[in-house]
Amino acid sequence: MTEIVETDVVIVGAGPVGLFAVFELGLCDLQCHLIDILDRPGGQCTELYPEKPIYDIPAWPVISGQELTDKLLEQIRPFSPQFHLNRMVTALRKLDDGSFEVETDEGEIFRAKVVVIAAGGGSFQPKRPPIPGIEAFEGKSVHYSVRRMEEFRDHDLLIVGGGDSALDWTLNLHPVARSITLVHRRPQFRAADDSVNKMFALRDEGAISFEMGQITGLNGDDGQLNSAVLKSEDGEQEISCSRMLPFFGLTMKLGPIADWGLNLHENLITVDTEKFETSEPGIFAIGDINWYPGKLKLILSGFHEAALMTQAACSIVRPDERVVFQYTTSSTSLQKKLGVK
Amino acid sequence: MTEIVETDVVIVGAGPVGLFAVFELGLCDLQCHLIDILDRPGGQCTELYPEKPIYDIPAWPVISGQELTDKLLEQIRPFSPQFHLNRMVTALRKLDDGSFEVETDEGEIFRAKVVVIAAGGGSFQPKRPPIPGIEAFEGKSVHYSVRRMEEFRDHDLLIVGGGDSALDWTLNLHPVARSITLVHRRPQFRAADDSVNKMFALRDEGAISFEMGQITGLNGDDGQLNSAVLKSEDGEQEISCSRMLPFFGLTMKLGPIADWGLNLHENLITVDTEKFETSEPGIFAIGDINWYPGKLKLILSGFHEAALMTQAACSIVRPDERVVFQYTTSSTSLQKKLGVK
Repeated sequence: MTEIVETDVVIVGAGPVGLFAVFELGLCDLQCHLIDILDRPGGQCTELYPEKPIYDIPAWPVISGQELTDKLLEQIRPFSPQFHLNRMVTALRKLDDGSFEVETDEGEIFRAKVVVIAAGGGSFQPKRPPIPGIEAFEGKSVHYSVRRMEEFRDHDLLIVGGGDSALDWTLNLHPVARSITLVHRRPQFRAADDSVNKMFALRDEGAISFEMGQITGLNGDDGQLNSAVLKSEDGEQEISCSRMLPFFGLTMKLGPIADWGLNLHENLITVDTEKFETSEPGIFAIGDINWYPGKLKLILSGFHEAALMTQAACSIVRPDERVVFQYTTSSTSLQKKLGVK
Repeated sequence: MTEIVETDVVIVGAGPVGLFAVFELGLCDLQCHLIDILDRPGGQCTELYPEKPIYDIPAWPVISGQELTDKLLEQIRPFSPQFHLNRMVTALRKLDDGSFEVETDEGEIFRAKVVVIAAGGGSFQPKRPPIPGIEAFEGKSVHYSVRRMEEFRDHDLLIVGGGDSALDWTLNLHPVARSITLVHRRPQFRAADDSVNKMFALRDEGAISFEMGQITGLNGDDGQLNSAVLKSEDGEQEISCSRMLPFFGLTMKLGPIADWGLNLHENLITVDTEKFETSEPGIFAIGDINWYPGKLKLILSGFHEAALMTQAACSIVRPDERVVFQYTTSSTSLQKKLGVK
């Protein structure tokens, strides 16, 4: 029998905005369960650029995606959020009493009075390059993101792509890998000029290789890559490699969210700017997944949206209580919740 | 002749939201001048609670008002904002070409295409003590702040109050004034223990006087104070004095902003939620001073408002340029502006 988890709020998405929503909702005594398709909290920040510096988080002159996530996790610890990772919300139903039932692809069911969609670009997945048999190497010697640079130390690394990720990782992993071959089908790149210049300078020094062409096949056993087949104007050649990083872009899919009957604007969920509520009362959307006039996909905007959404969520969960807005700096009761008083 | 400062943007208020606006505007290549009534940046954060912990700045589990200000100052350093402190904006005029002229009580004039009001609760002004007829002495022999210590040399000085300002100026002006009498209604002080101990040590040496009670009247002619009436448990007595410094705290007033013809809602400036523009195109209001449906007076909301306002400000300053929204994480051109690339 499926266990049903009862909670005040289900947050779909555990990126920075979903995490900060736990803080704001927690100040209001609302208990949160978070569901995310990735295997850890942080969303894009930890998945796409855990080590890349971010400069526009207020009062953080520089912070990496991983540090930002760690700080937010520390900040919400007093509220004991429950994480359900590596699963996708597949269905969302409104019950007769006005509350919601949220179902995941792991078969769990959550019942909540409020649902907050903080799903960023939706469920996002790296695009798989059209190379036969690549699936067998994925997660072993073929990776679509750099989780830890150390994984590539002393490896012969093949990087494929012509965008910022391909160029940046060529430059950043050059001191770590034993060798790097960058492959792109054209001599033009969709990356910062500065990175392209630096890459060509390294190539001219003989520090890395650059090949023009396409990878058409992979060789290896048990998921361990030995070489790749490069097809170029000069014909086919084999490139020896033990790790491969294909950067063919990400595809973000709204996924099942598209089927929940919410009003959309170019695949984003339309919300008001007072409560950040969707067309379905009780369902809110905050962060990159929502749209309203003036919307910018900035993490700091998601933080603001989380704060205003919380006022409305409180009124739904406790309709008879007047929501009194308080400051953490001066309210002893908030400080008790935070465990600092 | 008054020098006229030409700039892209004048920001009225150098609190955390005004400071972060410099960052967002700077990413857009807009040069900012900030004007604040206080003698340093930080607004309420540094004036009212520099050492008090704040818990709700995203990704800062705890930060003091002073630290928050310091971090923001560090973050905006690449954009070289120009600070004009210790002055109040007294007038704001629209010129025929659509730009603005901003005038301060120090007689400076700024010309800018965009004005951003980030004035928090308005201007901080000293509270007037409830002493009949005190107005006649203000600015002549009764002062609410010490601009130059020499003004008090060889005077018989009466200091009234029990906070840090009263205690600090008792200690600092003691070598300058001919005599000092400190008056406070209670033997307890809201000031640093160390200052209180030092004050009592000076009293015990006979270097200063301390009286418990309240000042109920002032005597003198033409604004020149001769004595004050002290009412205490022992009755009334006269204290001879030629200068008085009452420290009764600060109160926030909207001040001259109320006269600029902007639409107001309960003494707050009404803005839209797309650009945070006031009823006057080209004038924006962000942070605690603005109002829109759902508004919460949170620092993090001011940060969001600064970001969205910036898009509109860019279009005003450079109307022919398409504003391309970029991320600091991935844009080399933004990173160059930040001095990190």
